[in-house]
Amino acid sequence: MATVTIKDIQTITTQPAGSRLIIVKIITSEPGLYGLGCATFTQRYNAVVTAMEKHLKPFLIGRDVSRIEEIWQMGMVHSYWRNGPVLSNAISGADQALWDIKGKQAGMPVYELLGGKCREAAAVYGHAGGNSPEAVADSVRQFMENGYRYIRIQMGGYGGEASRIVKPEGAPDGAYFDPREYTQNMLRMIEHVRSEVGDEAELLHDIHERLHPIDAVKFAKEVEPFNLFFLEDPLAPEDLEWFENMRQQCCTPIAMGELFNNPREWQPLIAGRLIDFIRMHVSQMGGITPARHVAAFANMYGVRTAWHGPGDTSPVGHAANLHLDLWAPNFGIQEWCNFPEHVYEIFPGLPEVRNGYMYPSDKPGLGIDINEDLASKYPCQDEVEWWTQTRLPDGSPTRP
Amino acid sequence: MATVTIKDIQTITTQPAGSRLIIVKIITSEPGLYGLGCATFTQRYNAVVTAMEKHLKPFLIGRDVSRIEEIWQMGMVHSYWRNGPVLSNAISGADQALWDIKGKQAGMPVYELLGGKCREAAAVYGHAGGNSPEAVADSVRQFMENGYRYIRIQMGGYGGEASRIVKPEGAPDGAYFDPREYTQNMLRMIEHVRSEVGDEAELLHDIHERLHPIDAVKFAKEVEPFNLFFLEDPLAPEDLEWFENMRQQCCTPIAMGELFNNPREWQPLIAGRLIDFIRMHVSQMGGITPARHVAAFANMYGVRTAWHGPGDTSPVGHAANLHLDLWAPNFGIQEWCNFPEHVYEIFPGLPEVRNGYMYPSDKPGLGIDINEDLASKYPCQDEVEWWTQTRLPDGSPTRP
Amino acid sequence: MATVTIKDIQTITTQPAGSRLIIVKIITSEPGLYGLGCATFTQRYNAVVTAMEKHLKPFLIGRDVSRIEEIWQMGMVHSYWRNGPVLSNAISGADQALWDIKGKQAGMPVYELLGGKCREAAAVYGHAGGNSPEAVADSVRQFMENGYRYIRIQMGGYGGEASRIVKPEGAPDGAYFDPREYTQNMLRMIEHVRSEVGDEAELLHDIHERLHPIDAVKFAKEVEPFNLFFLEDPLAPEDLEWFENMRQQCCTPIAMGELFNNPREWQPLIAGRLIDFIRMHVSQMGGITPARHVAAFANMYGVRTAWHGPGDTSPVGHAANLHLDLWAPNFGIQEWCNFPEHVYEIFPGLPEVRNGYMYPSDKPGLGIDINEDLASKYPCQDEVEWWTQTRLPDGSPTRP
Amino acid sequence: MATVTIKDIQTITTQPAGSRLIIVKIITSEPGLYGLGCATFTQRYNAVVTAMEKHLKPFLIGRDVSRIEEIWQMGMVHSYWRNGPVLSNAISGADQALWDIKGKQAGMPVYELLGGKCREAAAVYGHAGGNSPEAVADSVRQFMENGYRYIRIQMGGYGGEASRIVKPEGAPDGAYFDPREYTQNMLRMIEHVRSEVGDEAELLHDIHERLHPIDAVKFAKEVEPFNLFFLEDPLAPEDLEWFENMRQQCCTPIAMGELFNNPREWQPLIAGRLIDFIRMHVSQMGGITPARHVAAFANMYGVRTAWHGPGDTSPVGHAANLHLDLWAPNFGIQEWCNFPEHVYEIFPGLPEVRNGYMYPSDKPGLGIDINEDLASKYPCQDEVEWWTQTRLPDGSPTRP
Repeated sequence: MATVTIKDIQTITTQPAGSRLIIVKIITSEPGLYGLGCATFTQRYNAVVTAMEKHLKPFLIGRDVSRIEEIWQMGMVHSYWRNGPVLSNAISGADQALWDIKGKQAGMPVYELLGGKCREAAAVYGHAGGNSPEAVADSVRQFMENGYRYIRIQMGGYGGEASRIVKPEGAPDGAYFDPREYTQNMLRMIEHVRSEVGDEAELLHDIHERLHPIDAVKFAKEVEPFNLFFLEDPLAPEDLEWFENMRQQCCTPIAMGELFNNPREWQPLIAGRLIDFIRMHVSQMGGITPARHVAAFANMYGVRTAWHGPGDTSPVGHAANLHLDLWAPNFGIQEWCNFPEHVYEIFPGLPEVRNGYMYPSDKPGLGIDINEDLASKYPCQDEVEWWTQTRLPDGSPTRP
Repeated sequence: MATVTIKDIQTITTQPAGSRLIIVKIITSEPGLYGLGCATFTQRYNAVVTAMEKHLKPFLIGRDVSRIEEIWQMGMVHSYWRNGPVLSNAISGADQALWDIKGKQAGMPVYELLGGKCREAAAVYGHAGGNSPEAVADSVRQFMENGYRYIRIQMGGYGGEASRIVKPEGAPDGAYFDPREYTQNMLRMIEHVRSEVGDEAELLHDIHERLHPIDAVKFAKEVEPFNLFFLEDPLAPEDLEWFENMRQQCCTPIAMGELFNNPREWQPLIAGRLIDFIRMHVSQMGGITPARHVAAFANMYGVRTAWHGPGDTSPVGHAANLHLDLWAPNFGIQEWCNFPEHVYEIFPGLPEVRNGYMYPSDKPGLGIDINEDLASKYPCQDEVEWWTQTRLPDGSPTRP
Repeated sequence: MATVTIKDIQTITTQPAGSRLIIVKIITSEPGLYGLGCATFTQRYNAVVTAMEKHLKPFLIGRDVSRIEEIWQMGMVHSYWRNGPVLSNAISGADQALWDIKGKQAGMPVYELLGGKCREAAAVYGHAGGNSPEAVADSVRQFMENGYRYIRIQMGGYGGEASRIVKPEGAPDGAYFDPREYTQNMLRMIEHVRSEVGDEAELLHDIHERLHPIDAVKFAKEVEPFNLFFLEDPLAPEDLEWFENMRQQCCTPIAMGELFNNPREWQPLIAGRLIDFIRMHVSQMGGITPARHVAAFANMYGVRTAWHGPGDTSPVGHAANLHLDLWAPNFGIQEWCNFPEHVYEIFPGLPEVRNGYMYPSDKPGLGIDINEDLASKYPCQDEVEWWTQTRLPDGSPTRP
Repeated sequence: MATVTIKDIQTITTQPAGSRLIIVKIITSEPGLYGLGCATFTQRYNAVVTAMEKHLKPFLIGRDVSRIEEIWQMGMVHSYWRNGPVLSNAISGADQALWDIKGKQAGMPVYELLGGKCREAAAVYGHAGGNSPEAVADSVRQFMENGYRYIRIQMGGYGGEASRIVKPEGAPDGAYFDPREYTQNMLRMIEHVRSEVGDEAELLHDIHERLHPIDAVKFAKEVEPFNLFFLEDPLAPEDLEWFENMRQQCCTPIAMGELFNNPREWQPLIAGRLIDFIRMHVSQMGGITPARHVAAFANMYGVRTAWHGPGDTSPVGHAANLHLDLWAPNFGIQEWCNFPEHVYEIFPGLPEVRNGYMYPSDKPGLGIDINEDLASKYPCQDEVEWWTQTRLPDGSPTRP
């Protein structure tokens, strides 16, 4: 096999629906052979683009496309400082594109290279919501009618209106949030939904790493009777030691990790069997290469996968998730965000969800393409977001 | 900037309302420039005065006022034996006064020097009480009407009348206390108050380090359903290893530390994430210098601050608390004792509480002054108190 | 004090001597009042510039310059994903500039705001080197003649010529390195230098996180008799658990941390008393705000500071280091890189080293300025570097 | 891609040079497409053949060849009782053959499917030996002249003549062995060889899991000054807890694992960073599928690979080792046994060693074939071996 090298790299940005997305396209020395990867870090997307264009691209041009592991290992340390979200996303863009290329070279979907399918499709969970427990229950019923068996239930980004927030004089603007009122409201909502929809639906709830740790433990304990499929991201990355206490006090299944970038975050949780589902954002950890290693590692400890799959994972990233899902012996569940129809036009081959399962396109590589002309009609918008400027009732800055 | 030195130190005592207070005043070589600090140890106030006047003052006179950290470090070890309440209070008096001076020199409130405000005001908790659960509930309602959202609920110093106390013949005088009856009475009281006032109020209760450890753990577990904002000082300084057990058995939030003088007391609790709020008496630990370091340390472990703020913290000490509160990213709550009006006259600039929030005067330094003439009208009274002469029903001496 | 806000931010790049430097300049609403901060990440400097210009700047414009702690806390989580080198450097640029501004507002050097000086100057260590043990000894002697008492001894970036490297057929280009030959050569070099220069000089050696962990432990054990002041960065961030074993086997003093970005890296090492010196790159961890907190934290555990101070710390960053050094009660040593004369012209107020001590300019704030015209004469050069493309003798990619 | 299924399976045995070898050949539904795998368990080879022919083959026939991970997972638990050497070897035979097939389908060597090459060739170690320290040193020199840099040094299977063995009356036949004399003789031998050949050669020694644990720790400590590249299999699988103690007492690098079949053996050693090299026999652990997962897992903990590569690993097994070696970012070293020339004729494509490096054939799949006619000329011999009938001097049975 003649050596195929990286000839050029394009970093494509687009915002077709909500989130700013970054797609990396690797053009090879072989005419017509290219690969796509997700490098989406919506909050700092410009920095990722620069990291790729100015730093990683010069490092990559001319390299043999087949040496994915070597490129990943060396790419990570080429910046000397490593394990941060901007650089890991850039590396992910390249890594996923190289797997896409290798699959095309082999004439196989990427899941084949990983070891082949352990299942035909990946069960997904959707996001039900509403402003009241009743509205959430209605939303859940609609998902069930559409074939979903796994449904995440939330009441808005911050748990609905927090009636108890009394700000001090002169309090600054921001997204105000009362963590203890949140837990009380959510407990009532979960109890209501479970009593309404019965045992058939698998219910999930996402804490979003926003509570004080002792409140998170209490909440995990209080929802135990409602038999959640899992409680998502109950603790901030700064508080991981608290999982041991959470485990001692209750047996609510725990999913964790969308914010992780550093191996020191996921390693002890998995090896300590302190969580049940590991759910990193694959591009934030550096792509398919580290994700498949962590999946295999988690499998040794009985921890299942639940890769992050919100709207700020690009369609290419969702495809990467799905290839990991189809292969991993310890696949648990896949988060899914329901892209609107025009996103399917921009990204032909974007996985389809039917009856609660996500199916791949089964074309070689990641099986997804991009219509660059269409994508360019949705340029990224720069806005400062409020939701990461979260404040406690007294105005204190807190976690987003 | 020309060097400004310590020219003189005055140790002012006064008892305007209940507690004997000690204020340290540092006079500098710069005309008109002086600073105030709290050195209040009400139970041993004469010893603190002597320690300051006879030992610390000669050590301090002539030193450069700008070198606060150096003076603190050297002042602590200058007695060789260290980390005790008499000496730490004396050092606190000097330390706070030096921060007051530095703020005046900079033309900035002390919270600015610490890093600036993270909030406009500090939420406080008040002390509701009464002789019966019903009376406590009434008191809570009154606090709520006055805008308080955080309210500590107690039934007298020892939990109300202890009907079960049967003394042996010849039992000496003292403050008799039945710890097991206490926990039963308090449990009923807390249950009653919560059922009366609903979820809106954040309730706290102070164990005052007075129970046998196994009873304290049981109590912490029993109050879990009533959703306390925190349980205060549940274990004596001699029993700190019990916090690990308390953590395993329940998720009642724990505040601890008003009796601490020694780093060995707070370090393992914080680093072990065994408590949720750290609440040292700032003058007892040596002033603003160590308190800001411990606040930053606690923040690394998700532990919030709840500095001790009873009537035996002087108004200057309350101002020091507030400057720490306004700055600290991990501020939790501030205890507050409601000084009567004449104390505001003696201490112009004493922080004000409005609608449950404490606001600073925003003058440079600590922003508080003392009217020494007025203060001198309330000289300290020497009395032996009964409340620290606590006895168990059989007359055994026990913790206060 | 009227509120002063952030009016504009400039991100200045320059490469006056070896490394690409990034200086952040915050222009305030008060005419003439501005501050400077270091945001230097030389390997990925363009990404830092974009992160600042496109993401952090819009978040910062209009904010109150006095609220440094709040801006730091919220700035860190505003990207949701956090604790990575690109974003932390951008935040550091703002953070240091805000401290510079606060110092200017107070009319005080930044060390005054931190708590005042604990010493007049900071002892530094210089970098002696050479191609042979004899050449290193000569270099050490020269440093000693120039008044240095602390001297780091190295033999080139990879320990001199590695004679044993035998590459396989077709081995790719790269910086080849034989870790085991390195330790043998270094051991001989250290033994030679110590025997030549006697006990007077404090000798240091930097492993640069490049050995297999068991080889690093062995080396630490073998150099024990030569009484190093410390052994620098003996283990990679991925291998931190090995410090416990290193501690069990020898008592060589250990300095660690230049590669750290995430609190999970430094917290357990300090709290476990597993190292003796903590040496983060201050801009890589986010600026003065986190560095002073970590210094105070380290002080609680008897760990001293040795902030990273190579040529890819900008002069502004060196000034920030120095302010931390002058204040911290647990200052240990400061690394120093000897900027050439023209760098002093570009950065008036750059700290001076005389007789082995580094002295500040003692102007308000950080006490350093930038001549932007001069700086612009040294634009940054983009080059892919070999030294981070390190390979083992068989061609395997390894740590840089 | 049309589904290709398993049509037939042949279990081929042959003994061309010392060890009885088992090769599994999977014939697929696609004409001409087949794969080879190693299932060699020389001591119980008939049982493996029977397990494959009677149990695994019926389970496998008709399955989709692409689903390697699924087949492995289900194949392991299909016997309910699992993790033993007979069944894992049978599964390995199938697993390696399926990877061989997938490689051929993709037109790529297996290392490409694993993630591509991290190096061009794998450094190997050879087995030097002799009856005296002098003879061993001569043997080492010969290896060095042939380009080997890594050389294992032994004195016969049991450490040379054990002069101190005094048998009791009536002692049975067997392989007598004096463990404490062994360690003394070996220490002298290692010291001699090191002094003769200098620092350039990397020396290894294999304890073969035969010592009492306290003697093994002592030996590991005693050889520390002679700077072994690693000490191989110092403790029996029953004594793994002793590794913690060995680590505390010395920093001799440790390789372990050729006897492992059960994840409980390798998981805690790796996660506890108690060894430096993991060296399972790939067919004994179930093939490429588990080996690549363990390699990735070990890489997370800084543990390198050193797969078992003696004469009782078949040439197909050596090829499988090499594909893992070329890919794994944490490859350490490969054991190699120097097959005689006629084995290369039986197994065309058998990896070649030149100048101390092992090179693959670079054909698709595992790149190795079998000439079945030639192989059949070397039928397996059933003999009971003495070397696993080891006895202590008093005749007690002990480890082999």
